[in-house]
Amino acid sequence: MKPIWSKSKPNGSTNGVTISKMNLYAKLAKVETFILDIDGVLTDGKLYLDPSGSLMRTFSVKDGYGMKLATSKGYHFWICSGGYTPGAEERLQALGVTEVHMRVEDKGARINALIKKHGIVAEQTLYLGDDIPDLPAMRISGVACCPQDAATEVKQYCDYVSSRKGGEGVVRDVIEMVLKTRGDWQV
Amino acid sequence: MKPIWSKSKPNGSTNGVTISKMNLYAKLAKVETFILDIDGVLTDGKLYLDPSGSLMRTFSVKDGYGMKLATSKGYHFWICSGGYTPGAEERLQALGVTEVHMRVEDKGARINALIKKHGIVAEQTLYLGDDIPDLPAMRISGVACCPQDAATEVKQYCDYVSSRKGGEGVVRDVIEMVLKTRGDWQV
Amino acid sequence: MKPIWSKSKPNGSTNGVTISKMNLYAKLAKVETFILDIDGVLTDGKLYLDPSGSLMRTFSVKDGYGMKLATSKGYHFWICSGGYTPGAEERLQALGVTEVHMRVEDKGARINALIKKHGIVAEQTLYLGDDIPDLPAMRISGVACCPQDAATEVKQYCDYVSSRKGGEGVVRDVIEMVLKTRGDWQV
Amino acid sequence: MKPIWSKSKPNGSTNGVTISKMNLYAKLAKVETFILDIDGVLTDGKLYLDPSGSLMRTFSVKDGYGMKLATSKGYHFWICSGGYTPGAEERLQALGVTEVHMRVEDKGARINALIKKHGIVAEQTLYLGDDIPDLPAMRISGVACCPQDAATEVKQYCDYVSSRKGGEGVVRDVIEMVLKTRGDWQV
Repeated sequence: MKPIWSKSKPNGSTNGVTISKMNLYAKLAKVETFILDIDGVLTDGKLYLDPSGSLMRTFSVKDGYGMKLATSKGYHFWICSGGYTPGAEERLQALGVTEVHMRVEDKGARINALIKKHGIVAEQTLYLGDDIPDLPAMRISGVACCPQDAATEVKQYCDYVSSRKGGEGVVRDVIEMVLKTRGDWQV
Repeated sequence: MKPIWSKSKPNGSTNGVTISKMNLYAKLAKVETFILDIDGVLTDGKLYLDPSGSLMRTFSVKDGYGMKLATSKGYHFWICSGGYTPGAEERLQALGVTEVHMRVEDKGARINALIKKHGIVAEQTLYLGDDIPDLPAMRISGVACCPQDAATEVKQYCDYVSSRKGGEGVVRDVIEMVLKTRGDWQV
Repeated sequence: MKPIWSKSKPNGSTNGVTISKMNLYAKLAKVETFILDIDGVLTDGKLYLDPSGSLMRTFSVKDGYGMKLATSKGYHFWICSGGYTPGAEERLQALGVTEVHMRVEDKGARINALIKKHGIVAEQTLYLGDDIPDLPAMRISGVACCPQDAATEVKQYCDYVSSRKGGEGVVRDVIEMVLKTRGDWQV
Repeated sequence: MKPIWSKSKPNGSTNGVTISKMNLYAKLAKVETFILDIDGVLTDGKLYLDPSGSLMRTFSVKDGYGMKLATSKGYHFWICSGGYTPGAEERLQALGVTEVHMRVEDKGARINALIKKHGIVAEQTLYLGDDIPDLPAMRISGVACCPQDAATEVKQYCDYVSSRKGGEGVVRDVIEMVLKTRGDWQV
């Protein structure tokens, strides 16, 4: 199916499912910035606690490759996490992330500020999150996406629920979807 | 279905399944304190052993968010574990846990003592455990819950067997069930 | 079904499946010593490598509880591993293991020597392994068991293939099977 | 089915599926060198990040046993990874790997150079990879294989898609397939 790059829907016999898909493609076609949560999105939502109390997290190599490829095509990545992931900054920057925000209390306010700072419009952003504190960010962003194992309320709200779980390729899946829609996924 | 907040069941044609659900809702409506085991409940029941002999465990970020939300609504969390999890106290306290008991030999006796100390009644407590040493604690608490991958004897005893495994959201699932029953889950 | 504690099978119409089960129960009834491989049995068969080259492995808390319970009933546990798991000795001894043998080249020879040393007969031993180097040990022991994710050749050889994977409760499953057969599993 | 060791296919009524299998067996019969990616092949594609920023990866014990067995039969193993896995060299050499190449930008060029260096032909090599940077290497090697959880484009290209995931026995599966085809898998 050829996506129609317009949010306004013409009158016609198009059924609900098609319209919804048309809307998703139209939204994806505008995305240039990916905003990612860390825990449960870039990671599997597990914290590995050692006896000293420090925490380890797991990241997906395939997510990383997708981020590097998208960055090379001119896409932007921002991190907006409620938690704190020490040791991640170097890796995130190597993958092309230009804004790393951790310990964010109000994700909606932070993303509004970032959108303003970068002089873009909300429709150019896609937010990928998995739990209730992500909902305010999802209400602002142009497209709201989540992993298969997101909280119930988040899955109900999102434009797109990936078949992938957090830390197991959901970031790659969303990147591929946008880049394929926009004709930027050539391998 | 509107839950009926009474343990006493009137005579009538209600079938077994319904009565059982009614009883569960009635029990949940009284819960104000969650008592949690660690291994196999807050964790996936795996011990990550390094060459020095020290052990690492995994915790779920979604469980943690549920605990923080419930604590903010006035619920209480106690930990009652037979094992020893060094390094966990700081994280558990940050999530709102007020009683952390590890290396407990007799969980029944310990919980009886805690109930007495806090001046509450057993019906106000919910116990979430996964293995045989949890059974004495389950016999005392108002509601007994377990993860999907609990020991056979525990699954047979419990009021509620979650569809979630230990370390993969069973604590969050039980918290949501109680807070929704009591009208405290607004997101 | 009441197991019949005799290896000799009377003539009769009993079909193959029944005979086989009868044989398994008869064999289990004689087991007093569990011989366990480490990698892929007590662990999930994964080696967690850190940048210094040292390795971490995962163990199941439920396996550990089963071992402690069986030890308290007078059962014996021996470890016979081809690999080397530094840091495990203390935990294994705490669970009641009395013989820890690592870096074993010829598992058959080692187990023959241990059986002789302890003055028992092979029928009193159960071997739980998951890969080809375990086959010589399985040919000697009274009962041969393996996890669900064992190598093909091992699954074909074993008296009992557990529904549990290595590191995810296969040791507990085998312990429960023996202790229930022998009337030693009261909880 | 007895494999036919010829790449040239005679005219006849053989259908597509059979021909394809014949071709795969014919290709496997020539393989003497396994070329392996690390992340997502020898590992599950997860990076375990600790607070200091260092990364841990998981390897499968069953893969390791397969590599040692194949090495003892005269097969060769080369590593060709785009990433960097500190601490792995010692383990890889113990398993019989003779060429370890990490941080490889152009896998096709590197493998061409290695084939030339060792004086073999491409048909004697099998490449096992999971993501887009592996495609140039796959186009050169005699047989291209991937794990179940490889990227879509890779699964479409490969001669053989294993039922095993990366880090969970895909290397063992491919080794067994070659050694069985060539009559070198006796256990």
